[in-house]
Amino acid sequence: MQNRALLQLFKNTRQQSEKICSPLQVEDYVIQPVEFVSPPKWHLGHTSWFFEEFILKQHKPNYKVYDKDFGFVFNSYYESVGEKVIRTHRGNLSRPTVEEVYNYRKYVTQEICAFLEQHVISEDLDSVFQIGIHHEKQHQELLLTDIKYILGNNPLLPAYDKDFIENNTENQSLQWLQVPEGLYKIGLPETSTDFAYDNEKAEHRVFLQDFFIANKLVTNQDYLDFINSGGYQNVLLWHAEAWDWLTAEKITAPAYWHLINDEWHQYTLAGLKPIDLQAPLTHISYYEAFAFAQWKNLRLPTEFEWEVAQHLFNWGHRWEWTESAYLPYPKYKKAEGALGEYNGKFMVNQKVLRGGSIATSKNHTRKTYRNFFHPYLRWQYTGLRLAK
Amino acid sequence: MQNRALLQLFKNTRQQSEKICSPLQVEDYVIQPVEFVSPPKWHLGHTSWFFEEFILKQHKPNYKVYDKDFGFVFNSYYESVGEKVIRTHRGNLSRPTVEEVYNYRKYVTQEICAFLEQHVISEDLDSVFQIGIHHEKQHQELLLTDIKYILGNNPLLPAYDKDFIENNTENQSLQWLQVPEGLYKIGLPETSTDFAYDNEKAEHRVFLQDFFIANKLVTNQDYLDFINSGGYQNVLLWHAEAWDWLTAEKITAPAYWHLINDEWHQYTLAGLKPIDLQAPLTHISYYEAFAFAQWKNLRLPTEFEWEVAQHLFNWGHRWEWTESAYLPYPKYKKAEGALGEYNGKFMVNQKVLRGGSIATSKNHTRKTYRNFFHPYLRWQYTGLRLAK
Amino acid sequence: MQNRALLQLFKNTRQQSEKICSPLQVEDYVIQPVEFVSPPKWHLGHTSWFFEEFILKQHKPNYKVYDKDFGFVFNSYYESVGEKVIRTHRGNLSRPTVEEVYNYRKYVTQEICAFLEQHVISEDLDSVFQIGIHHEKQHQELLLTDIKYILGNNPLLPAYDKDFIENNTENQSLQWLQVPEGLYKIGLPETSTDFAYDNEKAEHRVFLQDFFIANKLVTNQDYLDFINSGGYQNVLLWHAEAWDWLTAEKITAPAYWHLINDEWHQYTLAGLKPIDLQAPLTHISYYEAFAFAQWKNLRLPTEFEWEVAQHLFNWGHRWEWTESAYLPYPKYKKAEGALGEYNGKFMVNQKVLRGGSIATSKNHTRKTYRNFFHPYLRWQYTGLRLAK
Amino acid sequence: MQNRALLQLFKNTRQQSEKICSPLQVEDYVIQPVEFVSPPKWHLGHTSWFFEEFILKQHKPNYKVYDKDFGFVFNSYYESVGEKVIRTHRGNLSRPTVEEVYNYRKYVTQEICAFLEQHVISEDLDSVFQIGIHHEKQHQELLLTDIKYILGNNPLLPAYDKDFIENNTENQSLQWLQVPEGLYKIGLPETSTDFAYDNEKAEHRVFLQDFFIANKLVTNQDYLDFINSGGYQNVLLWHAEAWDWLTAEKITAPAYWHLINDEWHQYTLAGLKPIDLQAPLTHISYYEAFAFAQWKNLRLPTEFEWEVAQHLFNWGHRWEWTESAYLPYPKYKKAEGALGEYNGKFMVNQKVLRGGSIATSKNHTRKTYRNFFHPYLRWQYTGLRLAK
Repeated sequence: MQNRALLQLFKNTRQQSEKICSPLQVEDYVIQPVEFVSPPKWHLGHTSWFFEEFILKQHKPNYKVYDKDFGFVFNSYYESVGEKVIRTHRGNLSRPTVEEVYNYRKYVTQEICAFLEQHVISEDLDSVFQIGIHHEKQHQELLLTDIKYILGNNPLLPAYDKDFIENNTENQSLQWLQVPEGLYKIGLPETSTDFAYDNEKAEHRVFLQDFFIANKLVTNQDYLDFINSGGYQNVLLWHAEAWDWLTAEKITAPAYWHLINDEWHQYTLAGLKPIDLQAPLTHISYYEAFAFAQWKNLRLPTEFEWEVAQHLFNWGHRWEWTESAYLPYPKYKKAEGALGEYNGKFMVNQKVLRGGSIATSKNHTRKTYRNFFHPYLRWQYTGLRLAK
Repeated sequence: MQNRALLQLFKNTRQQSEKICSPLQVEDYVIQPVEFVSPPKWHLGHTSWFFEEFILKQHKPNYKVYDKDFGFVFNSYYESVGEKVIRTHRGNLSRPTVEEVYNYRKYVTQEICAFLEQHVISEDLDSVFQIGIHHEKQHQELLLTDIKYILGNNPLLPAYDKDFIENNTENQSLQWLQVPEGLYKIGLPETSTDFAYDNEKAEHRVFLQDFFIANKLVTNQDYLDFINSGGYQNVLLWHAEAWDWLTAEKITAPAYWHLINDEWHQYTLAGLKPIDLQAPLTHISYYEAFAFAQWKNLRLPTEFEWEVAQHLFNWGHRWEWTESAYLPYPKYKKAEGALGEYNGKFMVNQKVLRGGSIATSKNHTRKTYRNFFHPYLRWQYTGLRLAK
Repeated sequence: MQNRALLQLFKNTRQQSEKICSPLQVEDYVIQPVEFVSPPKWHLGHTSWFFEEFILKQHKPNYKVYDKDFGFVFNSYYESVGEKVIRTHRGNLSRPTVEEVYNYRKYVTQEICAFLEQHVISEDLDSVFQIGIHHEKQHQELLLTDIKYILGNNPLLPAYDKDFIENNTENQSLQWLQVPEGLYKIGLPETSTDFAYDNEKAEHRVFLQDFFIANKLVTNQDYLDFINSGGYQNVLLWHAEAWDWLTAEKITAPAYWHLINDEWHQYTLAGLKPIDLQAPLTHISYYEAFAFAQWKNLRLPTEFEWEVAQHLFNWGHRWEWTESAYLPYPKYKKAEGALGEYNGKFMVNQKVLRGGSIATSKNHTRKTYRNFFHPYLRWQYTGLRLAK
Repeated sequence: MQNRALLQLFKNTRQQSEKICSPLQVEDYVIQPVEFVSPPKWHLGHTSWFFEEFILKQHKPNYKVYDKDFGFVFNSYYESVGEKVIRTHRGNLSRPTVEEVYNYRKYVTQEICAFLEQHVISEDLDSVFQIGIHHEKQHQELLLTDIKYILGNNPLLPAYDKDFIENNTENQSLQWLQVPEGLYKIGLPETSTDFAYDNEKAEHRVFLQDFFIANKLVTNQDYLDFINSGGYQNVLLWHAEAWDWLTAEKITAPAYWHLINDEWHQYTLAGLKPIDLQAPLTHISYYEAFAFAQWKNLRLPTEFEWEVAQHLFNWGHRWEWTESAYLPYPKYKKAEGALGEYNGKFMVNQKVLRGGSIATSKNHTRKTYRNFFHPYLRWQYTGLRLAK
C-alpha cells in the first residue's frame, strides 16, 4: 500500500476507535464486569501498544518508548513478548488514567504518522501495518460489545447512544436456496492482494453434498416460539455440556432479554426497548443456535456451505454461528514470531462464525473471514441462519 | 443376528467384563478418585441397568425389576430416563455392595438369556441388543483405564496384573506413506450389515489434498527428546488454553511417568517399570500431541486422512489423536428416544481419536470407528501418528 | 498407671474400635463423601499409626516398622511428622485394603502389648499412652458419626444397626436453674491425676454474672416450632455468615431430616424413623443453635456457665454448643514436639461444645472437657441448652 | 446533642470524607480489586444512603428520594432493607458516575442540614444521627485503607499523597508493664453519655490473672528478625488454618512489603519507601501476629487485658490484634430493626482489635472501642503488642 493511502487508513482507524468511545463517561472506561470483557481504556491502550511494540520499537530509529510500564499493562496474550497483566485483572487498574491513555494513544499515533511520512515502507513492514490496522478494527467491534456488556449489566441500564440502531427488520419471507453438490474452492486465493488473516489460507478444495440454506436469519419471533414451546426445558435438544451450562447459569432467554410485566424487552445500545419481533435474533450462544435448529429438525450450515452460498443472500448484520469447529486449513502456516500468536493458538474448542455484524468495522470482514468464539459466549452480535 | 449367535455374544461379553475385574480387591471397585473415572462396580451395574432398562423392562413380559433404586444409582447420562446420581458422586456410594452388584448382574444376565431362548428377536430389538453389547464393550475399555487410574494414583502403586502387556515395541524405522489427492469415501457404507454407531454414518465423499502419513506411532524416545529440548517450556508450541492447562496442572510429562533418581519410569497395569524407549508413547492429551507435532514442524492427520490411509499401516495399539473435531457427518441422524443420547450430544468441544488400543475389546473397533474425548484427557491409551 | 491396668485399658480401647466397625461391609470402610468425613479404614489405620509413630518407633528397641508407606497414608495433620495424604484425598485410596489395615492394626496391637508386658513405663511415656488411648476414643466417636454420614447420604439409606438408640426422651418440663454471680474455678485442677487434655488447663478463676440455665435440652418439638414459624426465612435471627451459608447450602432443617409426605423423618443409625418430638434435637450447626436462641429471645450459655452449672442437670446425650470461642486458657502450655499439634493449632474460628453425646466413648468425656468444631458443622450429635 | 453542635459535627464529618478523596482521579473511585475492598464512590454513596434511609425517608416530611435505584446500589449489608448489589459486584458499576454520586451526597447533606435547622431532634433520633455520623467515620478509615489497596496493588504503585505519614518511630526501649490480678470493670459505664456502639455494653466485671503487657508495639525490625529466622517456614508456629492460608496465598511477608534488590521496601500512601526499621509493624493478619508471638514464646493480650492496661501506654497508631474472639458482652442487647444489623450479626469467627490507627478518624475510637476483622485480613493498619 502506498504510504499516503496507508497513512490515511491508519489515521481513520485511530479516529474511529476514539469516536466509538466518545459517548462514554470516564468511569465506563475502567471496569471489567466479567473476564471476557475488557475495560475500554484497555482496548485503547492495547491497540496503541501493538503499534509501539511491533513497529515503532523495532523499526523507528531512536524511538523513545512512551512508558516502559505500559508494555506490561497493555500486552494482552502475546506470551512471547514479556510479562503481562492477566486478563481477569484488567479491571483492577485505575491507573494509567483515561487521560493518560489518550496521551499515550496520541503519542503513538503521531510517532507512526511521522514515521510514515519519513520512511519507505517495505512489503514486510506494510504487512505488519495491515495487521495493526485490522487488529484495531477487531478491537473496535470488541469495544462496542464490551461497552454494551458494561452498560447492559448495570442495574440502571443506561443508553450508550439513543440513536444507535442494532436491528434491521427482515421483511422477506423464508426461502430455501439450493446449492448443488460439487467440489468448491474455499479460502483466500493466493493471487489476492487484499489484506487477510493467515487463518483464511491456503485456498483449497472442499467437496460438498447438495444442501439448502435459508435466505434470511432466524428472527426474534422464531426464537420466541422456541422459548414458548419449552425449548429451554427439553433436554433432548441440547448438547450435554450445553445443558450443564444453562442449568448452572439459569439461562432461559438470549442475553439482554428482560421479561417485564410479561412482555419481552431487549437492552440495546440505544437503551431498553420492547422486542422487535421481525428483527434478526441476536446474543445467543452456539448452544442455543444448535438447540433451536434441533427443535426445527434442521441444522446449522458448515462454514464451507456458508462461504459457497454467501452470494445468494444478504449478510453482515449478525455473526452467524456455523457447525464448523475452528481448525487450520490445509497448508496453514502461522506467522513468524509473536505475530504468530494471532490466530493459530486459538484453534481448539471454538466454533467458526461467518459474516459480520452491525458492530463490525467498515471493510473489516469479507466472504472468507473466519471469526471464532467459545460456544457459550453471547456478548457479540451473534445470530443464526438455518440449513438442511 | 440369530438368537443362538446373539446369546453367545451376549454371554461372552458379560463374562469378559467380569474377567477384567477378577484381579481386583473389593475396595478397588468402590472409589472414584476424579470425576471422569467411575468406580468399577458402577460400570458393572450400569451395563446391567442398560439391558434392564432398554430391553427387559420394555420387552420382557412380566419382568420384575431387580431393585427400583438401582435405576437411580446406575443410570449415567440418560437425562430422559428419570433421575440419576450425578457423575461426581458415584464414588460416594458404598452400597449397593460389590456382591449385590454381582447379584444384580447375574439376575440381569439370566433374565436376558431366558428371554433370548424364548423369544424371537425382531430386527429393531436386535439393534438394541447390539447397542447394549457394544456399550458394554466400551465400558470394558473404561474399566481397564479407570482401574489403571485408581491403582496408578495410589501412593503404593499396586500392580493390577503382573503379566499385563501394555507396550509393543515398534522396530520398524519411520517412513512417510504418500496418499494422492482425490475424492474419498468416508464412513460406513449403507450396505454394511455389521454393527456400527450412528456417528459413523452416513457414508459420504471428502476431498483430500495429497498428504503423507507416518507408518508408525511416535515413540517414548521421540517424546523424551521433546521433553529434553524444553518442549513443555516453549509457549509458542502450545494452544493458548493448553498453556493455561499445563501451567495450572503443572504438567511436565505424560500421565503415569515418574522421574526416579533421574530415570524415567512408567506406571503400567503390570506395575512400575523403566520407560521402554522403543514403545509407542501413550497417556498424552491432544494438547501434548499437537505441541509435539508443532515442535517437529509437522502436524496430526485429520480423521479423514487417517481413514483413507489406514490400510497402509498397523493400528490398534493406541487411540490416535487426530486434528479433527468431533462433528456430525452430513445426513447424520441420531437414534430415537433415550438411545439418541448416545453420541450426538457430545458433538462439541471434543477431538476425534481413531484406531483402538490394547485396552479395546475384541471386535469392538473398526476403520470407521470414531472415538472422542476432551482435548485435556490422558487416562486412555492415547498416542499419536504424524502427518505432513 | 500400672502396666497391667494400662494394658487392659489399651486392649479394651482397641477392641472397641473394631466392635464399632463390625456391622460394616468392606465397601463402607473405603469412601469419603465429604472432606470432613474420613473413611472408617483410615480411622483404624490412623489410630494404629499413632501408637507406632509415637511409642513403638521411639521407644521399642529394634522395632520393625510394619510398612514404611503407611506413615504417609495414615498420618493426619501432624505436619511436623513427614508428608501426608491430604484430607480430601483419603477417599481416593482403595489400598491398603481393609484386611491389610486390620493386619496392621493387629500387628501394632500385639507389639504394644508385648512392649507393655516387657518394659517399665515411665511417667512421660505413660502420658503418651494416655494420649494415644484417648486419641483412639475420640476417633471412635468420629467413626460412628462418619459411618452415619456415609450411610445416611446414600440414597438407599441403609441402617447401621437396627437396635441402635440415638434418642432418649426427656419427659421433664422446662425449668430454669439459677446460678448466682461469683468467682468460679474453671478447668482441670493441677492436683488431678486423671487424664485430661492440655486445653483444659490451667485451672483458673472466672467471674460470672448471675444467670439461668435450662434443666433440659431443646427438643425436636421446640425446633419444629422454630421451623414452622419461618425461622429459616427470617434474616434478622442469623449471623451474616450463617445467612450466606444457609442460602448457599439451601438449609431448611437439621441434618438427616427428611420431609416425606408432609411428615418429618430422621435418618438414625437404626434407619429412617418418624421424628420423635420429645427427643433432644440433634445435628444442628452452631448457626442454627444461635438463631433458635435469638428467636426465643434467649441465648446459649458460655462454656464457663456450663461448667459451673453442669452438676445441676443431666448431660451426655448431645454435644452442647456454647457461645464461647475455642481459645487457650490463661497459662495454657501446649505439649512439646508433634504432640503439641493436638489442640492448640485449632484455637481459632471454632466454637466450644460441652458435655458429650450418645456416640462418645465410655470414660472419655468429663465436666472440664472442651470439644470444638467449626460453626457450620452438623454431622456430630450436637444439640443445645438455653440460658438467659 | 444540641442541634447546632450536631449540625456542625455532621457537616465536618461529611466534609472530611470528601477531603480524603480529594487526591483521587475519577478512575480511582470506581474499581474493586478484591471482595473486601469497596470502590471509593461506593463509600461516598453508601454513607449518604444511610442518612437518607434511616433519617430523611423516615423522619423528614415530604422528603423526595433522590433516586429510587440508589437504594439498591448503595445498600450494603442491611438485609432487612430491600435488595442490594452484592459486595463482589460493587466494582462492576460504572454508573452512577462519580459526579452523580457527589450530587447525591450534596443533596443528602443539604436536606439533612435543612432538617436539622428546622426540627427539634428527639433523643431517639439524635442517637440515629450519632450512629450515622460514626458510621461515616468508620467508612473514612475504610476509604483510606481501600484507596491504599487500590493504588498499592497497581503495578505502577502511584502515591496517594506524597506527604502522608504512616509511620511514627517508637524510640523507647521495650518494657514490661505489670498489672495485678483482680476483678476489673470492662465496657462502657451505663452513666456514660458519649456515643458508643452496642457492642461495648453492658459494663461488666472480668477477673484477670496478673499479667505483663509491652509498653510498645512490635517494630518492623522485630518482625524482620522473625522472617529472617524462617518464621514463615516453621509450621509449629502457626494455626492449622493459618498454615493452609499462607501456603495457598504464598505469604512470606506483611502486605505491601516488596523485596527489591535484596532490600525490603514498603508501599505507603506516600509511595514506595525503604522499610523504616524502628516504625511499628503494620498490615499483618491475626495469624501472623499469633505466629510471631509463638516464636517469641509470648502471647497476644486479651481485649480485657488491653482495656485494663491501656492507660499505661500510648496507643492509636495501629489496630492491635488481641487473642479475644469477637463475642457479645453479658447483657448485650442489639438495636431494634435494621440498625440491629450493625454489630451483632458479625459476632462469629472474627477477632477483636483494640486501639485505633493513623487512619482512624478523629474522636472515633476510645478505650472501650471494639474493632473486629476476620483473622486473615491485612489491609487495615493492623499491628501487635505482646503480653505474657
